[in-house]
Amino acid sequence: MRENEPSLRPIGVFDSGTGGLTVVRALRDLLPHEDIFYIGDTARLPYGGKSKSTIERYSIEISGLLLAESSKMIVVACNTSSSLAVSKLQELLKVPVVGVIAPGARAAVKETRNGHVGVIGTRSTIQSEAYERAIQALNPDVRVTSQACPLLVPLVEEAWLDEEVTREVLHRYLDPVVGAGIDTLVLGCTHYPLLAPLIEEVAGPGIRLVDSAKNCAVAVKQTLMEWSLDNVKETPGKLNVALTDSSNSFLATAKQVLRLDIDSLETRIVQGVTLLETAL
Amino acid sequence: MRENEPSLRPIGVFDSGTGGLTVVRALRDLLPHEDIFYIGDTARLPYGGKSKSTIERYSIEISGLLLAESSKMIVVACNTSSSLAVSKLQELLKVPVVGVIAPGARAAVKETRNGHVGVIGTRSTIQSEAYERAIQALNPDVRVTSQACPLLVPLVEEAWLDEEVTREVLHRYLDPVVGAGIDTLVLGCTHYPLLAPLIEEVAGPGIRLVDSAKNCAVAVKQTLMEWSLDNVKETPGKLNVALTDSSNSFLATAKQVLRLDIDSLETRIVQGVTLLETAL
Repeated sequence: MRENEPSLRPIGVFDSGTGGLTVVRALRDLLPHEDIFYIGDTARLPYGGKSKSTIERYSIEISGLLLAESSKMIVVACNTSSSLAVSKLQELLKVPVVGVIAPGARAAVKETRNGHVGVIGTRSTIQSEAYERAIQALNPDVRVTSQACPLLVPLVEEAWLDEEVTREVLHRYLDPVVGAGIDTLVLGCTHYPLLAPLIEEVAGPGIRLVDSAKNCAVAVKQTLMEWSLDNVKETPGKLNVALTDSSNSFLATAKQVLRLDIDSLETRIVQGVTLLETAL
Repeated sequence: MRENEPSLRPIGVFDSGTGGLTVVRALRDLLPHEDIFYIGDTARLPYGGKSKSTIERYSIEISGLLLAESSKMIVVACNTSSSLAVSKLQELLKVPVVGVIAPGARAAVKETRNGHVGVIGTRSTIQSEAYERAIQALNPDVRVTSQACPLLVPLVEEAWLDEEVTREVLHRYLDPVVGAGIDTLVLGCTHYPLLAPLIEEVAGPGIRLVDSAKNCAVAVKQTLMEWSLDNVKETPGKLNVALTDSSNSFLATAKQVLRLDIDSLETRIVQGVTLLETAL
């Protein structure tokens, strides 16, 4: 019985869209037997420019949908939600909640040799200063230089992954960060791993990239073991995907680049309050 | 009394964000005495990549908020909503509903000399083929060449209005359209008028631009007169703005470029259904 065997329940993963499938890819590699239920809030994406209270509300709503699917833990694959809503979710929920910020921060502190780390992400992630706080909690001597890169998500969604325009935009965003003297760069947005080759080229040979998706998967594995929730069956895990909007132009790109088998794909409505009837 | 004098009620205007303030600017110029209540659905923007059913639902929810403010008519300043939801709103609402598509199509058919019109817009607007249908309903001999330009909104929101990167992105999008032989180009997104100088330069001297915001304002004026709803008072009209998210990084740019006086600014929550309590 699913309900009686918590370890057999799926890992619940959510993101504002389908970019969080980079985290699913990393989970698949590390935990091939786990079932995964993924929800992308495509009806309200992107989260990247929105306020803390809105992101908290969205994160609570989507976590509710994942718990209704018997999720044994919640993985916040979205950097913006991880920055702004993980502590709220941890306070509200009885299941463990893992985001991408803390694992990325740990990896960055481990990687840097000169004690100067760069972070790139959406406007909300950068404004939240969540990576700075997480990095400096681990080691107050590490300096952090951050840069919001709002054009990178739409560039990835256009699938302009190796284009002159994308290279130029990256130069505009990265040159000042690299010029400041960093030796490690955190890719603080789920879409960015798809641009990793170009980011590596533009940043130059001296810079190590930290992929928060991979580090998040490591943290998920540790958490499952700590809570005795790891699935010990030996059959391949299933991947069920639900999106809050039926339109998903980026899903095809993500599936192709990430080589993911999706067992089911459905649409879930997150309905707003309709005042129309009372107002007419 | 507001309720007894329909003409004194505000014009309700909505957009997915603050880009629709270009329509407010055009309304101000043409109808300086009208009060305007503007709602930007910044909590769920952009509408540009989302499905018809989601856009219809959002448009109904936001129109409900505008009717609760006693709006005498609804102006759909968002091209995506105008493409996908205006007929639904006209069917549901008792007040007149004016979008930006039909006025833009009329202006394009009037402007073109060689009978070949280009249309640029978000992915959803272009996929809906709403401009094609509206143009060909007016004159089936006019040919339409369309191009989705998903990067232009984020470029405008970065305020990169006169940059090399923006010029290059415009070349990528516009060169094939101009090469196809158009002589008229419809700016089918509320953000695009802010790029008009650069679009004019990239498209070249032979191309006339059609600004759907200006043409929408003309249609609003006509509709108000037809329905005897035009406000005859002589004091300057008020502009009240409500956004569904408190974060509004683009509002400052829009206010500055458009020189708009905003009398009040508030946040309205469009709440989703929370399953968390039942799921815990």
